Amino acid sequence: MYEKITEAANRLDGIAHKTPVLTSTLLNELTGNSIFLKCENFQRMGAFKFRGAYNTVSSLSQEARRKGVIAYSSGNHAMATALTCKILAIPATVVMPEDAPRVKTDAVEDYGATIIKYNRSTESREEIAQELIDKYGYTLIPPFDAESIIAGQGTVAQEFIEEVGKLDYLLVPCGGGGLISGCAVAAKHLLPECKVIGVEPALSDDAAKSFKTGELQTIKTPNSVADGLNTPSLGKITFPFIKEHVDDFITVSEEEIKTAMYLLWTRLKIVVEPSGAVALAAYRKLSVKGKRVGVVLSGGNVDVRKAGDLFKDIIV
Amino acid sequence: MYEKITEAANRLDGIAHKTPVLTSTLLNELTGNSIFLKCENFQRMGAFKFRGAYNTVSSLSQEARRKGVIAYSSGNHAMATALTCKILAIPATVVMPEDAPRVKTDAVEDYGATIIKYNRSTESREEIAQELIDKYGYTLIPPFDAESIIAGQGTVAQEFIEEVGKLDYLLVPCGGGGLISGCAVAAKHLLPECKVIGVEPALSDDAAKSFKTGELQTIKTPNSVADGLNTPSLGKITFPFIKEHVDDFITVSEEEIKTAMYLLWTRLKIVVEPSGAVALAAYRKLSVKGKRVGVVLSGGNVDVRKAGDLFKDIIV
Repeated sequence: MYEKITEAANRLDGIAHKTPVLTSTLLNELTGNSIFLKCENFQRMGAFKFRGAYNTVSSLSQEARRKGVIAYSSGNHAMATALTCKILAIPATVVMPEDAPRVKTDAVEDYGATIIKYNRSTESREEIAQELIDKYGYTLIPPFDAESIIAGQGTVAQEFIEEVGKLDYLLVPCGGGGLISGCAVAAKHLLPECKVIGVEPALSDDAAKSFKTGELQTIKTPNSVADGLNTPSLGKITFPFIKEHVDDFITVSEEEIKTAMYLLWTRLKIVVEPSGAVALAAYRKLSVKGKRVGVVLSGGNVDVRKAGDLFKDIIV
Repeated sequence: MYEKITEAANRLDGIAHKTPVLTSTLLNELTGNSIFLKCENFQRMGAFKFRGAYNTVSSLSQEARRKGVIAYSSGNHAMATALTCKILAIPATVVMPEDAPRVKTDAVEDYGATIIKYNRSTESREEIAQELIDKYGYTLIPPFDAESIIAGQGTVAQEFIEEVGKLDYLLVPCGGGGLISGCAVAAKHLLPECKVIGVEPALSDDAAKSFKTGELQTIKTPNSVADGLNTPSLGKITFPFIKEHVDDFITVSEEEIKTAMYLLWTRLKIVVEPSGAVALAAYRKLSVKGKRVGVVLSGGNVDVRKAGDLFKDIIV
């Protein structure tokens, strides 16, 4: 699988940004470790999702490209697919929840894709997408459960480790598991001793439960503030990668997520969305000192008009 | 004067951050120029003010250090003085307006300085500071009107040009004029052809008026959203530097400031305060194409709990 990550890195070369790694004296002092932040909030369209979507769509046949693609997503994968299709001049349709942040739906429209909205509580995005595929012959670009997606997302950890060298720990947010699957494969290949830890909101801890029980667990309509991680379960393809390559899971409360996000906004001066701050939110729960800890900040697409409400009860 | 900037750079070496320069395809497309953003929002304490304060305080005698220093400021200079004094273990008192953003007063307290609050409409911060100086022998660290402050702030442009090379234009926000005085001296020394443009909120356009009339103009209690630039007038020392080295002034509306800030938050994913976004706000008013334009983003200290309110009427 590592070879597919290297192939993805070649496809993304010159197209995706090589995002910066930030360090912070404050974070090092707060944790007693050396913290490295891989800033995928600075990625094109504002999140790591561009890597997997571009890697997948750019591998399609001419025939499939002509018919167009479809994606379903809480937001970032939709934007990633829409931007990819804009770059490659391919028609795109995306199925998005009605309550997706406006900054995300606006961006998808700006990239020229067609949006189909659905209700997360009563409708199945998979069924909606399947109907359109049957009708128009679209190719489905899955949000996480495909090797080409996992390989694209794995370039995050590959690039991260190439830049900073040895890491003792790598903290990665986990929704459907595409990012952590790819990152775990890359990290274990490059640094076999590195502990790869998945981080999940306690309100949507299906992956932590699946990991601990060894059986795929599902949570119906999870509702964490980390909207990008509100996937009901891991995928059939991501779960085996996670079982094999991930060392542990940590879950974090809604307050811990907002506090981490507040710290990033106010002290590091970077805009990170709730899902993007989840891995940093685990820093108080990693009971180690003097280690080199890599943290993936996965995205920065949040409605800044409303973000202040998230911080109103935060005490730091 | 340029020599003093070089001396300041030596004093700041290893103490202040060499802040990154960001570029953005989006901004280049919007403007038709190559835009370079000097990110002083990533400076220690979150703004360029640290440079001038540290340069000034670190030059004081042992006797003056023992007695302590005092500063008056709408916020960032207060934080800069407080942090400098924490680093150098010198007692600090700061006079701040009652309506200063809480993020700034909190930080000043965290750095261990004593805060004295005053009403911007009815009291004079200069008089309050003078009383305390008479009583305790404090040394006043002025917010902008001193050569040591100007020299410190001038390191922004020196560093900027050392990194990016030739600039055709340099856009710098202007409050009391410390930053633009130092930057203009440095820019004209290193790049005599570079046009240095001061940018000011139209609501506090005293510097633009002073520049255009050649006489020092004052605006009583200016009230722009760019709180760091609400200084009533340029200083006796900064005004001559500006007359000699600045090429022009541009004023921007409150809406233009908020729109530039929104663009920085949502598209570049960086937290910049209103005053810090003022120079970028001028980009639509600089009627040139194909030029290399440097923009100083001066700071990022804003109450993120309330910032969403600034954006509610923004249309982009």
